[in-house]
Amino acid sequence: MTTQDNKRTRLIDVARHAGVSPGTVSNALNQTRFVDPETRQRIDDAIQALNYTPNIRARQLRTGRTNTIALLSSLPLSIASGASKLGFMMEIALTASIMALENRHALILVPPGKNPLDTVTFDAAILLEPSENDPQLRALQNAGIPCVTIGRTPGTNKPVPWVELHSEVTANLLLRHLQKEGCGHCALFVSNRQRTSSLETEAAYRLWCNGRQTPVIYYLDEEKGEAAGYHAARQLLLEAPQVNGLLVLVDTFASGAVRAFHETGTKIPQQMRVATRYDGIRARESKPPLTAVNMHLDEVARQATMLLFDVLAGRPMAGCDGPIPELVVRASSKIL
Amino acid sequence: MTTQDNKRTRLIDVARHAGVSPGTVSNALNQTRFVDPETRQRIDDAIQALNYTPNIRARQLRTGRTNTIALLSSLPLSIASGASKLGFMMEIALTASIMALENRHALILVPPGKNPLDTVTFDAAILLEPSENDPQLRALQNAGIPCVTIGRTPGTNKPVPWVELHSEVTANLLLRHLQKEGCGHCALFVSNRQRTSSLETEAAYRLWCNGRQTPVIYYLDEEKGEAAGYHAARQLLLEAPQVNGLLVLVDTFASGAVRAFHETGTKIPQQMRVATRYDGIRARESKPPLTAVNMHLDEVARQATMLLFDVLAGRPMAGCDGPIPELVVRASSKIL
Repeated sequence: MTTQDNKRTRLIDVARHAGVSPGTVSNALNQTRFVDPETRQRIDDAIQALNYTPNIRARQLRTGRTNTIALLSSLPLSIASGASKLGFMMEIALTASIMALENRHALILVPPGKNPLDTVTFDAAILLEPSENDPQLRALQNAGIPCVTIGRTPGTNKPVPWVELHSEVTANLLLRHLQKEGCGHCALFVSNRQRTSSLETEAAYRLWCNGRQTPVIYYLDEEKGEAAGYHAARQLLLEAPQVNGLLVLVDTFASGAVRAFHETGTKIPQQMRVATRYDGIRARESKPPLTAVNMHLDEVARQATMLLFDVLAGRPMAGCDGPIPELVVRASSKIL
Repeated sequence: MTTQDNKRTRLIDVARHAGVSPGTVSNALNQTRFVDPETRQRIDDAIQALNYTPNIRARQLRTGRTNTIALLSSLPLSIASGASKLGFMMEIALTASIMALENRHALILVPPGKNPLDTVTFDAAILLEPSENDPQLRALQNAGIPCVTIGRTPGTNKPVPWVELHSEVTANLLLRHLQKEGCGHCALFVSNRQRTSSLETEAAYRLWCNGRQTPVIYYLDEEKGEAAGYHAARQLLLEAPQVNGLLVLVDTFASGAVRAFHETGTKIPQQMRVATRYDGIRARESKPPLTAVNMHLDEVARQATMLLFDVLAGRPMAGCDGPIPELVVRASSKIL
């Protein structure tokens, strides 16, 4: 491919080669209208055969669009990454980048907890687990950037379209499992930020406690990451010695809690059954490995990206139902 | 922050508030010139205090830059992702996105093996492990996009600036370890694509074989992913029964090989010592876990991103020396 070749091949050449109108090629390239898959394949073949490269910058000027979408996380880096730098957000990112490119957009990966709006602009954004009055969501909305979230925005009657994470289902799966494995007294560690996952987990836990036990809830500082889980677990052992099961919503906190139990000689699962939400590296590499749920993040990412393109295309959308989480039992809660 | 607020705050207001010239603010925002950290902090504080949002699109039109860099992988999706969708590329991605944003750029994550140039444009790119005559690298160069690679570009006297991955060091670490653990006859699985890591590993292996054994090398099809490792291992057991150690450069192939050894009742490590390169999820979750090397990908990503900004700033660069890999011994090669 040389610059000369580029000069020779124009959109109209592609249209002729594919046997369609230039308008159809433009619709296929710019996602401005639906083009059936078979026609789109013919256009793609023509683009390949003729070595056609659209003038991206000219198109961006004409359409006022960047053909990029961004992935942001409301959670701070202390939670969202951790030792291995891999997790929830990165699982979403790869699938979203593949889906975006299939829809002729590129994915901008924004580091957890950061606001990139003084640096770049993009056409639309996916935000992970917004909190109440989320500053990132507010910044996106003020900038007029269409947005969907993974997890519902709490504290509003008009949430932006979201993919449901079913945190209540998750909480009940884990609590029932802990109970079945002999947990008579269960404590809950949640984050101190008002996210739908925290709020729904706490509500499900309080309901579960009704007539069973007094709720034992610790609200942990996300910014402190693993250390917050460690210190809360040390406190728990002192303050509530009757507790023999622990639901930790955030896996980073769970890592810290497990460390505290090891240090104090508290046997997992015999003396303390532990369960968390995200079945990521932390859950799997924990000693013992942690009971968790399969959140089907591939499908979550797929739905979020498609929802975003619906919103971008001006289709009025409420949200997506999201996949139902499934229990993954490991040695932290059951003698296997 | 409302649109009105935005209209009121201009770059000159930020300059006044920070007590610097508008040119200095512009240099800090656009990375056009070095601004010392203390001054930059004052400017950042002023931006925060005044709720200043630069007009990104106007800046992009003026500078002809997008303030984005892209991360691409030359490896196909069959290799670069796998079941868990997390790995080498995603470890690099998070660090690169953080480094990019600190330098007022955003990171575009391109799915492995894909060319995004008919969709978006960006100022510069990091390409993972280019092959000889790499089509992605050629496309980037034809588009005039500055580029650095992680791993040297093979087959050229003028490689683009790169971060060294020390594949020869890695091969020797693993081969010496296998030998020490009683491996008398070692085979090698490498990819069929000419990447510097494959080429250097093969060369180191051939040297190691000198005077010891006949080389037993299988060249695997990257597109076939895990299945390629599985079939090569089945073949190896039939064709070279004397082999009792296996170095598999690509972890995806190693997963397949381990499956074949389990199916055939070949005991790891007693009958077959296995080692791979990348100490990722596949290595850790393998049963038994795989001996590998810590490639210090955080540092690799940091060096690559800084190198790219040097190149973007017009500084002539050869490359970065890259961190030295360290052996991580696990149960696949040693009775622990």
